[in-house]
Amino acid sequence: MRQTAPVAPRPGRTEGPPRTPEDLRAYLPYLVNRLSNRLTIDQGKLLAERGLTNAALRTLSVLHIYRRLTVNEISVLAVLEQSTASRTVDQMLAAGLVITRENGASDQRRREVAPTAKGERLLKGIWPLVERNRERLADGIERDDIETCVRVLSRMIDNVRQHDL
Amino acid sequence: MRQTAPVAPRPGRTEGPPRTPEDLRAYLPYLVNRLSNRLTIDQGKLLAERGLTNAALRTLSVLHIYRRLTVNEISVLAVLEQSTASRTVDQMLAAGLVITRENGASDQRRREVAPTAKGERLLKGIWPLVERNRERLADGIERDDIETCVRVLSRMIDNVRQHDL
Repeated sequence: MRQTAPVAPRPGRTEGPPRTPEDLRAYLPYLVNRLSNRLTIDQGKLLAERGLTNAALRTLSVLHIYRRLTVNEISVLAVLEQSTASRTVDQMLAAGLVITRENGASDQRRREVAPTAKGERLLKGIWPLVERNRERLADGIERDDIETCVRVLSRMIDNVRQHDL
Repeated sequence: MRQTAPVAPRPGRTEGPPRTPEDLRAYLPYLVNRLSNRLTIDQGKLLAERGLTNAALRTLSVLHIYRRLTVNEISVLAVLEQSTASRTVDQMLAAGLVITRENGASDQRRREVAPTAKGERLLKGIWPLVERNRERLADGIERDDIETCVRVLSRMIDNVRQHDL
C-alpha cells in the first residue's frame, strides 16, 4: 500500500510556513490560488472583448449541462457568489440568453433558470476560444499527469465540500 | 515518449463545452477555480475569527520568504489585486506587522515592505491552523499523486505566467 501524506511536504522540511521560493512553488493551495487567479483574469479579458463576463460564461456552461437550475444552484456550480449569480442571471435574462420561471415562490433564489437557443449558440460559438486557452495551459504536460492532477483536485474538492452539488 | 494532450479530454468526447456533470468534474480549469474558491472562503473564516484576512496572511507568507518586497511584488506573489495589496500593507503597518521604507520614490508601489518580529510571530502562531486545513485537503490521497499534481500546476503556471516572479 502506498503512503498517504499531507499535501506535498518537502522531504526534511521542518514544521512552519514555506521558507524558500521553491517551498512556495511546491505548496499546493498556493498553486491552486495562483493558477485560478491567472485563468480568471485571462479568460475575463478574452470574454470582455466579446461583451461577456466570466460569470455569464460559467452560468451558460452549467446550464448547458443541467438545463434547469435555481440561482442558488448556479451559485454553487458556477462558483459565483450568490449576489453575483443573481445579478448575472438578471443581465442574461435581459440579453435573452436565459429564461426564468418563478416557481411559485417570492424567494428570488428559488427562481428556475434555463438557457435559450441564443444562450446555447453563444456558448458553442465562444467555446473554441476557451479551448485554445486550455490547450496553452497543458502545453508540454503529459496526459497521464494531467489525469492524475484532475483526480487529485476532484478528491480534494470532495474532502472540503459543503454542498451536495 | 509519452503523449502530450489537451487538459484531460474524455476519450471519445466530441468538441464543445462539457455536457455532463462528469465532464465538468474532469475539466481541470473548473476544478482549479472551484477548489481555490472553497479554500479561500474556508481560510478566510478561520482567519476572521482571529482578526486576520487572507490578504494579510498571504502577505506575511511571502514576506517570510522574500524578506523585502515592493507592494507591486507582494501583489503578484501573494496573488492580490494591486489595490488590495496596497490597502493590506497599510493595515498591517498600522497593526505593527510590517515596516515600510519609501525607497526615495513618490510612487506608492515602489514602497519596500518588510515583516516585523510581531508579524513573524503571528504567521508562525497561525500556521498550525493553516496546516490542519491542508491536511484535511489531502485526506486519503497518495503522496505521489499529490506531487504529480504540484508539478502539473506549477508547469501550468509557467505556461500562462505574465510576470517573472
